[in-house]
Amino acid sequence: MTIARTICLGFLAVISVGTLLLLLPISTSSGDWNSPLVAIFTATSAVCVTGLIVVDTGSHFSTLGQCFILLLIQIGGLGYMTTSTFLLLVLRRKFDLRQKLAIQESFDRPFLQGSQHLIRSIIITTFFFELTGLLIILKPFQEDYGFLKGLWIAFFHSISAWNNAGFSLFADSLMGYQHSIAINIGVPLLIIFGGIGYQVILELQYWIKSKLSGQRVLSIFSLNTKVVVRVTAFLLISGTIGFFTTEFLNLNTLGPLTLKDKLLAAWFQSVTTRTAGFNSVDFGSMSDTALFITIAFMFIGASPSGTGGGLKTTTLGILINCTRSTLRGHEQVIMHSRKIPTSLIYKAIAVVLGSATMVVSVTTLLSITEAGKFDFIHLLFEVVSAFATVGLSTGITADLSEISQIILIFTMYTGRIGILVFMAAIFGDPRPTSLQYPEENLLVG
Amino acid sequence: MTIARTICLGFLAVISVGTLLLLLPISTSSGDWNSPLVAIFTATSAVCVTGLIVVDTGSHFSTLGQCFILLLIQIGGLGYMTTSTFLLLVLRRKFDLRQKLAIQESFDRPFLQGSQHLIRSIIITTFFFELTGLLIILKPFQEDYGFLKGLWIAFFHSISAWNNAGFSLFADSLMGYQHSIAINIGVPLLIIFGGIGYQVILELQYWIKSKLSGQRVLSIFSLNTKVVVRVTAFLLISGTIGFFTTEFLNLNTLGPLTLKDKLLAAWFQSVTTRTAGFNSVDFGSMSDTALFITIAFMFIGASPSGTGGGLKTTTLGILINCTRSTLRGHEQVIMHSRKIPTSLIYKAIAVVLGSATMVVSVTTLLSITEAGKFDFIHLLFEVVSAFATVGLSTGITADLSEISQIILIFTMYTGRIGILVFMAAIFGDPRPTSLQYPEENLLVG
Ligand SMILES: [K+]
Ligand SMILES: [K+]
Repeated sequence: MTIARTICLGFLAVISVGTLLLLLPISTSSGDWNSPLVAIFTATSAVCVTGLIVVDTGSHFSTLGQCFILLLIQIGGLGYMTTSTFLLLVLRRKFDLRQKLAIQESFDRPFLQGSQHLIRSIIITTFFFELTGLLIILKPFQEDYGFLKGLWIAFFHSISAWNNAGFSLFADSLMGYQHSIAINIGVPLLIIFGGIGYQVILELQYWIKSKLSGQRVLSIFSLNTKVVVRVTAFLLISGTIGFFTTEFLNLNTLGPLTLKDKLLAAWFQSVTTRTAGFNSVDFGSMSDTALFITIAFMFIGASPSGTGGGLKTTTLGILINCTRSTLRGHEQVIMHSRKIPTSLIYKAIAVVLGSATMVVSVTTLLSITEAGKFDFIHLLFEVVSAFATVGLSTGITADLSEISQIILIFTMYTGRIGILVFMAAIFGDPRPTSLQYPEENLLVG
Repeated sequence: MTIARTICLGFLAVISVGTLLLLLPISTSSGDWNSPLVAIFTATSAVCVTGLIVVDTGSHFSTLGQCFILLLIQIGGLGYMTTSTFLLLVLRRKFDLRQKLAIQESFDRPFLQGSQHLIRSIIITTFFFELTGLLIILKPFQEDYGFLKGLWIAFFHSISAWNNAGFSLFADSLMGYQHSIAINIGVPLLIIFGGIGYQVILELQYWIKSKLSGQRVLSIFSLNTKVVVRVTAFLLISGTIGFFTTEFLNLNTLGPLTLKDKLLAAWFQSVTTRTAGFNSVDFGSMSDTALFITIAFMFIGASPSGTGGGLKTTTLGILINCTRSTLRGHEQVIMHSRKIPTSLIYKAIAVVLGSATMVVSVTTLLSITEAGKFDFIHLLFEVVSAFATVGLSTGITADLSEISQIILIFTMYTGRIGILVFMAAIFGDPRPTSLQYPEENLLVG
């Protein structure tokens, strides 16, 4: 079996177990058996760290059910590969070569040799950030809900934010904490570092360690880190400006807020939109302009090997630099004084074409199954949100027909395992060829 | 001045002259001076062979005004470069090297050496097809409007169809001829050959000549022709099926028609959608599904060096084959046993990124200037239609605010000169570099 198919089946297995757990009467607050569609939708949404919901997490599920959801989020966020590797580590079994390859494929990092060290480092990083985040966001929740309940809420939202899952215990997500500085710092911090990718964090760790130990540090940042940090910073800033300007006067969203709160809310949405999926303003009341900008940002998505989805920041970086090379008449694509391998550029094209095809097909299907029941842009919003595992919604998820919800489940799944892995599992047929063909031009554009 | 800037200014010059002509009282049926915005919108739409209109061409303009529009369409269709070359030819002036280069750039065909022969061949081909088309579509118009008026209508629609302009003398485009076999054959024939590109037609001509003269013909079709013909055939068939199935039951479009007429109308829309812009059914009554499929087809567009716009069939072909290569683990992109140069793949990426950026930006702008006045999908439809120089509309063009209409004029212009040429004119800065950089991987997808 190919690695791509292993990944597909691994996610499927975790989703199946999650569905069974959420079906049980102990998982619901009413004590009844859960509806199968609700169980499978919620389990998929949790494992795929999407955050779209058809029932209110806080009231529909029992505390145990909420624990199951958290567990699925953590497993999904760390990834099937990491988690299974972790289990193997704990059991102190030796890796065979095949597993080593699979892990490296999953992280796309041929330069990292010690897989065991890597996995341990990921787990420690995760716990470190989740704990730090919990401490930052603890106070406002304890003020409103007391010590124990507040701790549980902070614990839930910290894990949900780090894994960019977007699940919340509140029916209105984090709209009640629009004004809270702690929430507007802690949650974005978790989201950004969770979505930026482990490689970037590891390199930052190494850099900070070297600095602290007084060593003279050479440039140790990889091309990946440089591109990710730049594109992410650019998107965060332009997203904040975009939300702030388009919704400034909208009385249902930013309009009634003070200038400080307007900026906080715009910043929060800019961070959360590209993959996390919390919201501190009501997307159902947003203008078409803001919805469309949100769709574009969701589609671009997070950074690779983090917990987010979408095209990825690096893909966008490659596309932009390809375009620049073409306009300048260069033969090579150069980023930060490094040549980008052509195979990587083909990969970027595959991601773009696959993602666009998927979004267009699913949106077409939903426009048929919902036949005029909802505004088109709300359907497009829902589809891109599911595919990029963002989880924002204009509030229509629960009102969609059953067939549409099943289509969304499939969309979240392909979005999380990644369109490349999905296409490789179906169409992949690696037959390396040594045939040489003559080159010929054709007309483009 | 770079070639890209020459092309930009050339189109601007023709549009300016056209605007002045259409401003004159002799151009309007009322005999009054035309409104400046109507004149510039119509002139741009004609020169850019788009076909979006803010006034009814048949009733607002005098016959002389309609002649001006036809002239602008013909100039726009043949292209600024071809036309100016033709004028030079007529004047029997020698080409200098600079002009020769400009012409070859405009056709992107370095293999063609004799520019004069090429231009003559293009003109003859154009007249041949326009005359043939006129004869095919003549009868139904003469039956309804008498000999002379019918001839004029057929003449107008033949030129408009060959140049994929989509201008019609009827307020409801060709909806009145939904059932006519002659129209459903003649107009699509003109559109397909007008949009397929001169290179393909020249190669077909050569092939037919060789066949007729009894010569044994070697494979003379270029990679470009093979790709264009295949992708075009695929799009025509899938478009027909798409319209037929999605609108089968829609009482305002295909629903009331007989099976034969349903098929005719679906076929007609499939042909006209990717760039021509006539319609034989009412797009204002179409389902969101059909509108969305139409938007996708418009965005893909016609074939290069023809009279159409959009991403182009070859770009789509390259993207699909890149994806296939990635999934199969190949190092090269092979189409029809030919290797695609990497520079061409970069060019395809530039076209896709540029087009997507343009469509998203303009749609965002229009959603601000129209602020909730129209359904979002109708605005998106209008923008893609303008950018891909299609000219289909759900009927909102004339109701848009003046600022939106000005934005659309700009969109039609960039769409027609081509996003690559436009970007090259603005950002282009060909500084060939001989620096070599080390290769480095980064994470994608
Ligand atoms: K999410
Ligand atoms: K057109």
